[in-house]
Amino acid sequence: MRCGSGIEARQVDELFINIDPIQAGGRLTADAMKAVIAYGDGYSVCDNCRKPNRLDYIAKPPIAEFHKDLATWLNMDSARVVPGARRGFQAVAHTCVKKGDPVLLTSLSHYTEFLAVEEAGGVACEIPANDGHIVTADAAAATIENAKRRYGRAPVLAFIDHVDYQYGNVHDVQGIAKVAHQYDIPVLCNGAYTVGIMPVDGKDLSADFVVGSGHKSMAAPAPSGVLATTAEREKEVFRTTTISGDLTGRKFGIKEPELMGCTLMGVTLMGMMASFLHVKERVKHFENELANNRIVTESLLSIHGTKVLSEYPRKHPLTRVDTTGSFDTVAQTHKKRGFFFSGSLVENGVHGIIPGATRIWKFNTYGMTTVQAHHLAKVFVTIAEENGLKIS
Amino acid sequence: MRCGSGIEARQVDELFINIDPIQAGGRLTADAMKAVIAYGDGYSVCDNCRKPNRLDYIAKPPIAEFHKDLATWLNMDSARVVPGARRGFQAVAHTCVKKGDPVLLTSLSHYTEFLAVEEAGGVACEIPANDGHIVTADAAAATIENAKRRYGRAPVLAFIDHVDYQYGNVHDVQGIAKVAHQYDIPVLCNGAYTVGIMPVDGKDLSADFVVGSGHKSMAAPAPSGVLATTAEREKEVFRTTTISGDLTGRKFGIKEPELMGCTLMGVTLMGMMASFLHVKERVKHFENELANNRIVTESLLSIHGTKVLSEYPRKHPLTRVDTTGSFDTVAQTHKKRGFFFSGSLVENGVHGIIPGATRIWKFNTYGMTTVQAHHLAKVFVTIAEENGLKIS
Repeated sequence: MRCGSGIEARQVDELFINIDPIQAGGRLTADAMKAVIAYGDGYSVCDNCRKPNRLDYIAKPPIAEFHKDLATWLNMDSARVVPGARRGFQAVAHTCVKKGDPVLLTSLSHYTEFLAVEEAGGVACEIPANDGHIVTADAAAATIENAKRRYGRAPVLAFIDHVDYQYGNVHDVQGIAKVAHQYDIPVLCNGAYTVGIMPVDGKDLSADFVVGSGHKSMAAPAPSGVLATTAEREKEVFRTTTISGDLTGRKFGIKEPELMGCTLMGVTLMGMMASFLHVKERVKHFENELANNRIVTESLLSIHGTKVLSEYPRKHPLTRVDTTGSFDTVAQTHKKRGFFFSGSLVENGVHGIIPGATRIWKFNTYGMTTVQAHHLAKVFVTIAEENGLKIS
Repeated sequence: MRCGSGIEARQVDELFINIDPIQAGGRLTADAMKAVIAYGDGYSVCDNCRKPNRLDYIAKPPIAEFHKDLATWLNMDSARVVPGARRGFQAVAHTCVKKGDPVLLTSLSHYTEFLAVEEAGGVACEIPANDGHIVTADAAAATIENAKRRYGRAPVLAFIDHVDYQYGNVHDVQGIAKVAHQYDIPVLCNGAYTVGIMPVDGKDLSADFVVGSGHKSMAAPAPSGVLATTAEREKEVFRTTTISGDLTGRKFGIKEPELMGCTLMGVTLMGMMASFLHVKERVKHFENELANNRIVTESLLSIHGTKVLSEYPRKHPLTRVDTTGSFDTVAQTHKKRGFFFSGSLVENGVHGIIPGATRIWKFNTYGMTTVQAHHLAKVFVTIAEENGLKIS
């Protein structure tokens, strides 16, 4: 099926159970799809932009209200929408980090956090995750002390993933923030896998910044995201422009340079907004997501030789498994090699595993129904049985 | 009409002739609307992302091919998509400008160019437009010499608007670039109002960077845009990441820090791509747009007391007019004050003039049919006649 200009129409989420690690939380709600259709045109949210001419002041559609609601929902003081979580990282890094400054990251940090540090001229100091792949407050304290010895000063910012992209593990943001604050280090909580998925309370986490991803976890189109902060830090990261034209004397009102002025002027923002009521509701039922994940993960663990590399029991539906001792043994002699596995999944209505992967791979059960979870659980076992693997 | 979650469905471009200065070129094509529906979900273009895992390498949908086509079309060597022209400005400014560096802008530069300079720590040096509101090579030369005297060195970058947002005038990018290059100043041609509207040949303009806006002028959803550059400059602005994890030794492949890695992972890019064939075609018929603009502008000029502030005859459909001597004289005594004008336009099926404006205002005839241009021309004259203004 083509959707014009020779582009094939994507039907992944219409035809399959999609367990792609990064896609499960960004599937649009029906309301978002309607908003996408109504606000597809370029600058579609600017019809009623009036002075002071800034996106987050537009009353119709209710963008101003949405910004307030976003901040309240995250229990932070102020929020802005951004073109992806990474642009939130960039704004914060550019605000807090100067050339040569040490910056805390973790051994599980996402590449976009590293790029934000690189762009700002900072130096990466990774907090090591422990053997269980969890980043702890103790490890943060040790890394800060190491950085102080090495650079003669404490790091100027900490990027802490609430849930990391590799294992989907929940890290101790609160404990790490407590330690970091003793050194006056502001903490950015990277909620790309949590904001819109599970409850996130920025104040409770002691976060100075909470960043979320619209297209990863808030059922919104790409690129979209949120950067929320405290009353203290908003003066820094959301400071207004001070540059002026040397000749004309022009000034540029209350535009915010870290955001490059307005950010999401159309479909991306409206998709986020239309999904927001649903997203607020769905995080309240996160336990159901873990229950569905358990159905699937237990099925995988029933296949001899399969390991769950993520923390267990799971606290997040993004899960990393090692099937070197199970599906990969089949791949060794299968005529389709590793592709037998992804191929069989697709034949059974499951999409989102990297084609050919049979050793270490990730899946995300987020957003599926219990019926779908049972189907997926059965598919894994069936593929295993059909290929002679032992089930217990 | 509501589209869910209490959001009113926008129907501006369905129900009206939209002459909003910033919206006319960003209206989606039918193919883009189809792509928006098919690729609304979050990370919808990432299904077939394979090593080296970068957006512009994805073969299906044909994103890699689109990037090559974009560069060729602009007659530049390399191109990337960005979340709005402003993010292209930011990437270039951050690459070229260090703290305290003088940067050339013009007295007609857009605020986002100033913000990009501010973010990079640069100092603005505006090239003055002449009395006809045109920025010339001579003025650029004088401003460079002034900057050299004042800062002890030449500016490090020049932002030159191909067509500015205030008057819609066409500026001498080629002549200015010739002068700038004598001082080794790279030139960014801001094509936010031209790329996708009229033919743009980056090499012919001698531009080092060409930036375009998807949502302003390429019939694409927001935020989207393009940053194209030369073989020489791509090594700088599209350099790949060099940061690494101090503990894990992790590196981050060929991700580009100025772009923060991948940029448009879904609906925005697919909208741009789906419109691209149409956009390539429409720029070839730019003369028709000027002919339509002439119909409308001549009608306005037939109303006594009305002035066109933009260069005349028009070379671009974005046009600034002064109706202080015509419609504003009516507003002085009208019970609806200035709102009589915008209100009458809406009643006659015309949208996009700032409500209440009757002195200096802008409109954009881009994309309308000749029948619509005649309708609009007649509407202006009719409103004038109904309010006792003299027509010649």
